[in-house]
Amino acid sequence: MAYENTVIKERLSLLRSKMAENGIDFYMMPTSDFHNSEYSADFFKVREYFCGFDGSNGTLVVSADFAGMWTDGRYFIQAENQMKGTGVELYKMGNPGVPTIEEYLSDNMKEGQVLGFDGRVVSTSIGERLEKKLSGKNISLKIDKDLAQEVWTDRPSLPCHDIYVLSDELCGKSFAEKLSDVRGKMEKAGAKSHLLSKLDDIMWLTNLRGNDVECNPVALSYAYITMDKFILFVQEKEITDEVKVYCDKVGIELRDYAEVMNFIAGATFDGDVLYDKRNTNFLTFRTLSDKAKALGVELKNEKDPTELMKAIKNDTELKNIREVYLRDSAALTEFIYWVKKNVGKTEMTEYSAAMKLDSMRAQLPGFIELSFPTISAYNANAAMAHYEATKDNAAQVKAQGMLLVDSGGTYMGGTTDVTRTIVVGEISDEIKKHYTATVAGMLQMADALFLEGCTGRNLDVYARRPLWDIGIDYNHGTGHGIGYILNVHEGPHSLRWRYAEGVSEAVLEPGMIVSDEPGVYIEGSHGIRIENIIEVVERSENEYGKFLGFEHLTYVPIDLEAIDTRYMKPEHVELLNKYHKAVYDKVSPLIKDEEIKNWLKEATRAI
Amino acid sequence: MAYENTVIKERLSLLRSKMAENGIDFYMMPTSDFHNSEYSADFFKVREYFCGFDGSNGTLVVSADFAGMWTDGRYFIQAENQMKGTGVELYKMGNPGVPTIEEYLSDNMKEGQVLGFDGRVVSTSIGERLEKKLSGKNISLKIDKDLAQEVWTDRPSLPCHDIYVLSDELCGKSFAEKLSDVRGKMEKAGAKSHLLSKLDDIMWLTNLRGNDVECNPVALSYAYITMDKFILFVQEKEITDEVKVYCDKVGIELRDYAEVMNFIAGATFDGDVLYDKRNTNFLTFRTLSDKAKALGVELKNEKDPTELMKAIKNDTELKNIREVYLRDSAALTEFIYWVKKNVGKTEMTEYSAAMKLDSMRAQLPGFIELSFPTISAYNANAAMAHYEATKDNAAQVKAQGMLLVDSGGTYMGGTTDVTRTIVVGEISDEIKKHYTATVAGMLQMADALFLEGCTGRNLDVYARRPLWDIGIDYNHGTGHGIGYILNVHEGPHSLRWRYAEGVSEAVLEPGMIVSDEPGVYIEGSHGIRIENIIEVVERSENEYGKFLGFEHLTYVPIDLEAIDTRYMKPEHVELLNKYHKAVYDKVSPLIKDEEIKNWLKEATRAI
Repeated sequence: MAYENTVIKERLSLLRSKMAENGIDFYMMPTSDFHNSEYSADFFKVREYFCGFDGSNGTLVVSADFAGMWTDGRYFIQAENQMKGTGVELYKMGNPGVPTIEEYLSDNMKEGQVLGFDGRVVSTSIGERLEKKLSGKNISLKIDKDLAQEVWTDRPSLPCHDIYVLSDELCGKSFAEKLSDVRGKMEKAGAKSHLLSKLDDIMWLTNLRGNDVECNPVALSYAYITMDKFILFVQEKEITDEVKVYCDKVGIELRDYAEVMNFIAGATFDGDVLYDKRNTNFLTFRTLSDKAKALGVELKNEKDPTELMKAIKNDTELKNIREVYLRDSAALTEFIYWVKKNVGKTEMTEYSAAMKLDSMRAQLPGFIELSFPTISAYNANAAMAHYEATKDNAAQVKAQGMLLVDSGGTYMGGTTDVTRTIVVGEISDEIKKHYTATVAGMLQMADALFLEGCTGRNLDVYARRPLWDIGIDYNHGTGHGIGYILNVHEGPHSLRWRYAEGVSEAVLEPGMIVSDEPGVYIEGSHGIRIENIIEVVERSENEYGKFLGFEHLTYVPIDLEAIDTRYMKPEHVELLNKYHKAVYDKVSPLIKDEEIKNWLKEATRAI
Repeated sequence: MAYENTVIKERLSLLRSKMAENGIDFYMMPTSDFHNSEYSADFFKVREYFCGFDGSNGTLVVSADFAGMWTDGRYFIQAENQMKGTGVELYKMGNPGVPTIEEYLSDNMKEGQVLGFDGRVVSTSIGERLEKKLSGKNISLKIDKDLAQEVWTDRPSLPCHDIYVLSDELCGKSFAEKLSDVRGKMEKAGAKSHLLSKLDDIMWLTNLRGNDVECNPVALSYAYITMDKFILFVQEKEITDEVKVYCDKVGIELRDYAEVMNFIAGATFDGDVLYDKRNTNFLTFRTLSDKAKALGVELKNEKDPTELMKAIKNDTELKNIREVYLRDSAALTEFIYWVKKNVGKTEMTEYSAAMKLDSMRAQLPGFIELSFPTISAYNANAAMAHYEATKDNAAQVKAQGMLLVDSGGTYMGGTTDVTRTIVVGEISDEIKKHYTATVAGMLQMADALFLEGCTGRNLDVYARRPLWDIGIDYNHGTGHGIGYILNVHEGPHSLRWRYAEGVSEAVLEPGMIVSDEPGVYIEGSHGIRIENIIEVVERSENEYGKFLGFEHLTYVPIDLEAIDTRYMKPEHVELLNKYHKAVYDKVSPLIKDEEIKNWLKEATRAI
């Protein structure tokens, strides 16, 4: 007899009865929190609860006689295994003939039926698209019911951790100054109020930090801003005395996080409302737009003004970032030494190596948390885009090939992100060729000189050209922005080349920091990525405009064992030597162990 | 007593009485033909007729007691002189405090007044903007009256020249094949019919050519395409027997050009209509959208499908283009020799030099016309973006400095465009530095290697970087597409770097040809531009996609007298030597004169 997962079947059956009670014919459960954060807490793992599949991407759709789960190619095998015996069908996204969720619903829902989902975990763009697609069949949406809450009795609570205050000295700019800038932008946009839903933007603006999202020092929150008020919605339990005193002092009115929808529904906007559709979930958007319509005011969908302000680091932030990056670089340098010294001699796995590095970072001054789970991938594993070694499932690192380590920390003074691919034994000539081209691309990008007005799309070829010259490309952007004591990924700028109609781009401006991370991924063989973080700086100004360039923030040796100058242009050799000299000059004073210092001297020698 | 221009005053007075008769309070006269062509024929010089100013850009606005003319910085002095005594006020566009036409009308027109203009010479975007801006004041537009026609008794007639047929062999693709491709795109867009207003697109599609626009081998025309009909609107007098026979044969239904508006107004669209708003004048757009509304069909504003088809040259076109470019290159090479040999010895002006080159081109096989009026600019004149030497106003070319010549021809086999800056005497070290960087940029761009998917914005830095490295920029795009026996400027692709929200970009595809023309412009001193036309070619294909590059189409020596290798990277020297070897190998066989051939050998020597 076939295996039956009675636990899941029971849960689905309870869900179906709740659907019937609420007049919902199809219920959709995607993977997100209320703010589209990069990581979702256990509270949000509704899809996992109802089908067993726990990958990072998946959407479950349930009707009275159907349950289907959509996920992407990374998870086909895992999903199949985890959903065995549940009766939930797997829909392999992207495979030929497999309908999208929209297509499935539009084909299978009947005239007049009701689609339900928790509108707080669905983006406005997806919500609007579904609405449009289904409106032809007179299908309505019910988006204000979180049915999981009624079925999942032992559901973990919403993440709820103490908020803390960063000093104005650490932030370089007080809340009052930032708020005044935001109000200036609101005025320019002709808005009297502004709803801000993006967690890292709220944190940056208030100089507060939290701990509600893994690796992101943010608190679940909303901010509502008028010309004379600033209301911050956070969970009451997260408000410490320190936070209360601070908020009183700077004029932040605190309200409970759970109240935000009622607040919007009952608001009396005395003018147009600025919001950013990209960052607003569908229920918030609907509540906001219904209210605006009722009051006869306009919703102004514009980029959150905080996005660009946050991206252009101020002098204090930059000074702290530079220091933090040096310390972080020194730790990674010591880790590389440790790997090279111990590999083949002591037991080492991808996971144990990552643990070692994480513990080294944790000892650095001002350490808060990792900026993302450390990626440690040995040889062919490094070619897999989303590879994650776990304690129980990690490759042995032997004295052969390479170990790719992509990691970073958030400290009181900055958030780091760096990748090095470390040679741990013999490597082929082909790998050296790939490695050398990757390094040339990284250095060439950092060596760009450009007029203000350029976006990452103008410059991306600098990183890719050495790889394109040998017929290789990498299927990811070259770089992303990075927060200050905040999320490791932030916009609005980036380094990427592909054109997409209607996608807006941000001009690179002095004070922005961005990653520079070309790579080579050869399935079943090896993966290489070299990532530095670089800072946009002004070089000169004349009648043509401001000429900008980059300065490295990351100073970690690049493995010379994998460099073959036959594959480099003379200018690339020069750039590498110049970089390595700077690595030694800046990082060696932070390294106490003479043996490591000597090794670093050798590892950064001119070639 | 102040001078009075009674002729203009009389004309304006007649215009005002016609305005009164037609209930028009303000009448606007911009500078364009019905198809937004690059050059307007005398018939369209309405603004000049009513104010005396004959520059290439200007808009005249007249009311009962006001007349104002808006033009840009190039023409402030000229406009002031030419409008003396007319009572027409000059509005200096871009100067602080000067209102735009929209602002002026919105400030000065009264509630309920009527703004008139010939809707055929105003773009839809400008028309819609005016309409929106003025609708608040309840101002209506009257766009179907060409008042000039009623006042200007000796107005030149609409340009009207014989149309001719290009053979399928010359075009590489028959009208039937092209039409079938267009219908495929219409089907894909869900359209049953398609109105095409763009002259070069109509010519390309029909394999016809005309002569109604200066330097553009096009006929004034519209095309209306359904799934089983193709109607071409051209002036009846332009239809030769050859054209009639051809159109009969291939199934082109001919109607008179003057009938197009009536045709649209009386059309019975049996489905949605594809059109391209960018290329449709405001009257046509209004007529079309009124009709669509009346019939309950939708207007689909999409890029004219012909635009991209026309841009990707077919094998026959490419073969012919390559040959034509070699012959054109040889002629320019001989011209450069002539300039160098004669300068300082015989009388030479910018104008006479241009005449010489034009006459040399005219002798080439298949010559039709110049592709644009030859730009011949000596020393500081070359720094002016829109400098035009005339017979009566041209600088003497002496044996000192440089002569910039930007020129091209349209031949039975292709349209060319090329710029060389020719050293005619002593030049400064600074000029050599600028010249060398310009050449490095041009060659470096042509040496790009890139994955399919790149647009010109990804690559433009290749041309600019050598100039940016010395703190210089040029205030124009690096390159534009070029027609085949057609307009010297065509889209949709280009090489340019600046980002503008909402401006769409075209991916570079094999078979596209594009200009590569960096430059340096130092006001009052010198101007340098080096322009080659390059062809997008496929280099290789693998799992990452198609890798593309460029091949030169232009083979004309670059003046080594202005090259200083101190300002070049080794790879630039290599590129220049490689290019010069190709110039000699390809062009010398076309040059009969042994003396010139010997000179060319020397002019293309490796450095």
